[in-house]
Amino acid sequence: MMDVGVYRLPMAGPDDVSELAKLIDNGTIRAEEVCAIIAQTEGDGYARGYAAMNFELMLSERLGMSREEVSARIPMLMIGLTGGLMSPHYTVFTRREVDAKPTGEKRLALGIKITRVLKPEEYGTAVQARLVAEAVREAMKEAGIERVEDVCCVEVKCPNLTAARLEDARSRGKKCCRTNFAEAGSKSKGASALGVALGLGEVQDADVTDEAVCSNWALYSNVASTSAGNEQVACKVIVMGNSVNSVSKFKIGNGVMQDTLDIEGAREAFRKAGLRCEHDLPEEERQRIATMFINAGADAMGSIRGRRTTMKSDYLVGYQGIFAKAVINAIVGSLVGDTMILASAGYEHQGPLGANLVACIARAE
Amino acid sequence: MMDVGVYRLPMAGPDDVSELAKLIDNGTIRAEEVCAIIAQTEGDGYARGYAAMNFELMLSERLGMSREEVSARIPMLMIGLTGGLMSPHYTVFTRREVDAKPTGEKRLALGIKITRVLKPEEYGTAVQARLVAEAVREAMKEAGIERVEDVCCVEVKCPNLTAARLEDARSRGKKCCRTNFAEAGSKSKGASALGVALGLGEVQDADVTDEAVCSNWALYSNVASTSAGNEQVACKVIVMGNSVNSVSKFKIGNGVMQDTLDIEGAREAFRKAGLRCEHDLPEEERQRIATMFINAGADAMGSIRGRRTTMKSDYLVGYQGIFAKAVINAIVGSLVGDTMILASAGYEHQGPLGANLVACIARAE
Amino acid sequence: MMDVGVYRLPMAGPDDVSELAKLIDNGTIRAEEVCAIIAQTEGDGYARGYAAMNFELMLSERLGMSREEVSARIPMLMIGLTGGLMSPHYTVFTRREVDAKPTGEKRLALGIKITRVLKPEEYGTAVQARLVAEAVREAMKEAGIERVEDVCCVEVKCPNLTAARLEDARSRGKKCCRTNFAEAGSKSKGASALGVALGLGEVQDADVTDEAVCSNWALYSNVASTSAGNEQVACKVIVMGNSVNSVSKFKIGNGVMQDTLDIEGAREAFRKAGLRCEHDLPEEERQRIATMFINAGADAMGSIRGRRTTMKSDYLVGYQGIFAKAVINAIVGSLVGDTMILASAGYEHQGPLGANLVACIARAE
Amino acid sequence: MMDVGVYRLPMAGPDDVSELAKLIDNGTIRAEEVCAIIAQTEGDGYARGYAAMNFELMLSERLGMSREEVSARIPMLMIGLTGGLMSPHYTVFTRREVDAKPTGEKRLALGIKITRVLKPEEYGTAVQARLVAEAVREAMKEAGIERVEDVCCVEVKCPNLTAARLEDARSRGKKCCRTNFAEAGSKSKGASALGVALGLGEVQDADVTDEAVCSNWALYSNVASTSAGNEQVACKVIVMGNSVNSVSKFKIGNGVMQDTLDIEGAREAFRKAGLRCEHDLPEEERQRIATMFINAGADAMGSIRGRRTTMKSDYLVGYQGIFAKAVINAIVGSLVGDTMILASAGYEHQGPLGANLVACIARAE
Repeated sequence: MMDVGVYRLPMAGPDDVSELAKLIDNGTIRAEEVCAIIAQTEGDGYARGYAAMNFELMLSERLGMSREEVSARIPMLMIGLTGGLMSPHYTVFTRREVDAKPTGEKRLALGIKITRVLKPEEYGTAVQARLVAEAVREAMKEAGIERVEDVCCVEVKCPNLTAARLEDARSRGKKCCRTNFAEAGSKSKGASALGVALGLGEVQDADVTDEAVCSNWALYSNVASTSAGNEQVACKVIVMGNSVNSVSKFKIGNGVMQDTLDIEGAREAFRKAGLRCEHDLPEEERQRIATMFINAGADAMGSIRGRRTTMKSDYLVGYQGIFAKAVINAIVGSLVGDTMILASAGYEHQGPLGANLVACIARAE
Repeated sequence: MMDVGVYRLPMAGPDDVSELAKLIDNGTIRAEEVCAIIAQTEGDGYARGYAAMNFELMLSERLGMSREEVSARIPMLMIGLTGGLMSPHYTVFTRREVDAKPTGEKRLALGIKITRVLKPEEYGTAVQARLVAEAVREAMKEAGIERVEDVCCVEVKCPNLTAARLEDARSRGKKCCRTNFAEAGSKSKGASALGVALGLGEVQDADVTDEAVCSNWALYSNVASTSAGNEQVACKVIVMGNSVNSVSKFKIGNGVMQDTLDIEGAREAFRKAGLRCEHDLPEEERQRIATMFINAGADAMGSIRGRRTTMKSDYLVGYQGIFAKAVINAIVGSLVGDTMILASAGYEHQGPLGANLVACIARAE
Repeated sequence: MMDVGVYRLPMAGPDDVSELAKLIDNGTIRAEEVCAIIAQTEGDGYARGYAAMNFELMLSERLGMSREEVSARIPMLMIGLTGGLMSPHYTVFTRREVDAKPTGEKRLALGIKITRVLKPEEYGTAVQARLVAEAVREAMKEAGIERVEDVCCVEVKCPNLTAARLEDARSRGKKCCRTNFAEAGSKSKGASALGVALGLGEVQDADVTDEAVCSNWALYSNVASTSAGNEQVACKVIVMGNSVNSVSKFKIGNGVMQDTLDIEGAREAFRKAGLRCEHDLPEEERQRIATMFINAGADAMGSIRGRRTTMKSDYLVGYQGIFAKAVINAIVGSLVGDTMILASAGYEHQGPLGANLVACIARAE
Repeated sequence: MMDVGVYRLPMAGPDDVSELAKLIDNGTIRAEEVCAIIAQTEGDGYARGYAAMNFELMLSERLGMSREEVSARIPMLMIGLTGGLMSPHYTVFTRREVDAKPTGEKRLALGIKITRVLKPEEYGTAVQARLVAEAVREAMKEAGIERVEDVCCVEVKCPNLTAARLEDARSRGKKCCRTNFAEAGSKSKGASALGVALGLGEVQDADVTDEAVCSNWALYSNVASTSAGNEQVACKVIVMGNSVNSVSKFKIGNGVMQDTLDIEGAREAFRKAGLRCEHDLPEEERQRIATMFINAGADAMGSIRGRRTTMKSDYLVGYQGIFAKAVINAIVGSLVGDTMILASAGYEHQGPLGANLVACIARAE
């Protein structure tokens, strides 16, 4: 049987990995069992790399391997740019095989797969989507999750187009999907999300075409959260769900907030994670929450419930994603009394336009 | 008896006052009865002046008087800088004497007073606080509000220190409370808020000293929202509360959110405004809300419920106020299903540090 | 003969048009002769509208006509967003017919034309370019400028695509060049600049196609500066050059800085305007400068002379245009000892990519 | 005799130290001789730590010592936040004793000293200034610089106040100079600059008091550039000047630009560094420039030569320092045809208010 551990830890800055070091050094966590880290880092994009470097360095000492080996072994998803009440932190997942009896109910299970290295000209295309779809299916299998309905959250980190990569494609006579890096990054995230949708049967194979990426918004996954990074060369896929093959102390649930004010979508996630939640979440149920991941979508829309917002206007241009994350973090934070909730921005095929995808991991009773 | 009308209207930009023009032109609102306008404008600080100029110009045509006369007659509080889900809009208050029987219950009443012109060296001092306190008491009287407990919201617009005013004080051998304009503005807002507290008996007269302003945070008002502007030379005070002398169709309620996640404080405001609200606010009760004003305080704190935020860190420095407004707007917006809620940032003696003050005006049944 | 006056005036804020009012009121300027205003306003985009409104209002009183009539009569180009050493100000042009003898040399002449109203689907297309080209030729004629070599600066204000205009086009079954407003605005500016190039014979008619706009960067004008605004429905064209038919006290010169460090390009403008400038500009020559306009292009490039800049990187995204303006203003400012120089950002066919176009108006000797 | 080497190297990002690694690995630079690194990093404040970490890690491998030992051995001054034409890069200084004859002229010499660890309550006080003054004198001695007139540039990295340090002081019953971290950081930089001035005899000992720090602007150093960091616990002082005891191939010169447009101040630095520069700097002289450091001061002023700027206004608040650096980098860059010039912002006693301090290191002939 699989056993999955979940540790949500605060960080004092992008360079602070001391809480994890402490848990490893005092024996609470075995470094060999760390299988993924998902962090909400403050600061700009470079702070993501800074945080990853600190994790790699600390773990390379504990694991007795090089930084490169750590990087290849443990997927690290660093989500940068905080604002509002967002609280920098990271969630560490551990995984191990244990000799135990099934609990009789489905528990948190995790599968991790990395696609082959993509060529720059494949970024943002149906090729990328199909590679991700395959990785999702394999990760489900690895996790022992049998039904797609039991998958609650799929995190994907995929490559960004860079000047060097664009040049590489050109030198081989190939064309990339976009020459504008921001647009190309959006397409890469979109293709990854469509790949999740395809892997889980949320869309039809025939619909997943190059043209559909970041264009046919009727296609989407309700559990995908994707982000792109210059440092990535392949797509790293983490599938989270519940499985009878897991004896984890945790369960995961998910919900879709159809718009940013739709708190029933968050409550759906609480309930699916096993929390009692009629209206407000009682204090004892709040205590059971281990960690939460939200994919924010408010920046895709210029209005909400008929009210115009200034998400698309010219002041503070470029900060819409931070605001989208800050407001959903605050709203869901007000439901659980805690803002140490990871919020990632990205609307590309990650739920219907304007929706927020909520995943909640809670201690089983 | 006094009758007070409340109209919350959307604006397409700082220059859009068309909705009010329409209501005046079709006879819904009589221009002579417009007594105050409180707006949430998008854009930067200059957009506040732009919006005010548009209101003045439009009303000067309807009222047959000069822009200057309009400006002197109708206090206009323009709150700028929107973010997240905040929706630019304005609330128009009308007031008139009517020959009517008391309703037997307390209804929305409004009093407006403007202090004498302040000298620059008085900004941010106990002198300013006492002038505001006096204006608050007079405005209460004018509103026919008999008990301080019935005052739910006091909006104050006060002067900012400018280079010219600093120079003026210096030329007369006088010293201003600060030479840094941002700090001086903060002190002006703080003195105004202390003035409200003094006027309503929330603090003792002996405690209101020059030194206490922006220093003794144990002193505060639970209903004050103050903002400062370069264009102001005196303090404009709008007192809102409930009175038996009003036959308005509206009631007002207020509550204190002790921190930004404390949604019970918002529910207290709903209930005091006469809305039925056990847990979630039912759809029919939401429909009764006429307008809402929140004074946001999240930017005063670097953490919330033990979780560190990045409000005080070096990225996006200068935008904390916008984030404070955006997150409280989102949280309360999620309770009422609407983000057309005015949010003003300002922590200086406006509630305990980190608190948010909520006022809700709703149709009486 | 034509006489053209030039007045460069400081503004204390977007709402400050007092210097012009003073010059009109004391008889220095006759309001009827004001033919164009080009301003560098601080603050965000809304401050442009705010400034224009103040000009219109002040002039409507002096001219005894409505704001709308003023707006239709006098083109006002408000260039917003200042940074660094940029100093908010405006240049007022006056024009009148005088009974005078030719000076025997070419002097500053101004022609102003407005195209027909464009349909949204025409924005950013060859249709727009050809309308601008025609307006440029007519404005040259009006200015009495006989040779295209004598045209030194063409300022164009053109329409932006808005949600309402996009919807209008759609409702008539028409397609706009882009659905992203930022990209559509860029195309509108590009089409205008290509139009100037066409009107002045800098490009061939056959090259001006829909596809070429914002795509074939080998096509450009060396004297065009274009900006787009939501409030525009047609293209307003101001052609400035030198003509034997003018008896203005001023001359204009222009130069192309091939990159932002190419100060020889600025010196070329000084010399063409009649200033003595071997190396540094002597103090007495600096005093002869009446006003300057620069079209900045640094934001089009991610490097300069082999050195990588961070213009294209992810920090301060959205502010590249301000930085492009601030650095060229500073560099040229250091040559003339004055930073009250208008800088406008826009690389779309306005000079070769990365170039800065400099126009200098100086008192003739 | 001392030999000092200077290597200016580009960086592709805060994590790119490959150029230095290459020079070490191919034998151009001996790792043991690296004595200081001064970098201009892009990104926000965290990117400074990220860059330092990368340098430490790379050098720890080359030097066979721990990162901590590298950090203690080699002062690394990371100056963050780029804008405009600024080009991320770093300058590596090497130093070694050589058996050589004096050249007969003064050449580049370098002295490095670190003060004792300061207590938080000493930050921003005369105690800090005196410690820096002593370190400056010792570093001069170490560098073999005999006269204060031969000191051209003193870079100081000093500690910032943090929440933990403030708490530490409080727990011991001590008061820090400020509780606002930004203000405390400013005072720390100011005390360091006053310390340089004291060490070089630019100010009198009696004038250096706690009260004078960031208050008496008549006191300043014409060669100091100071910056503060949360990671510092002591003041690191790098003194650069010319000495007969050096046989370096380089000379250093400095100049004071009295305001940001005063290019004669930069030319003074060129000439003192041995470059021929009557008006424009000829191409062959430009080629001799090894590296340049500028301390920018434009953000201290709200106007320049009588022209109002928007440095102190409310748009883009918080970015004045970046603009100050961007504009001086551009202006001096236009003189040398290269923007790979380090610009640091800081007005606190670093030259008269509004001045820019320029240091230029050039190859001797």
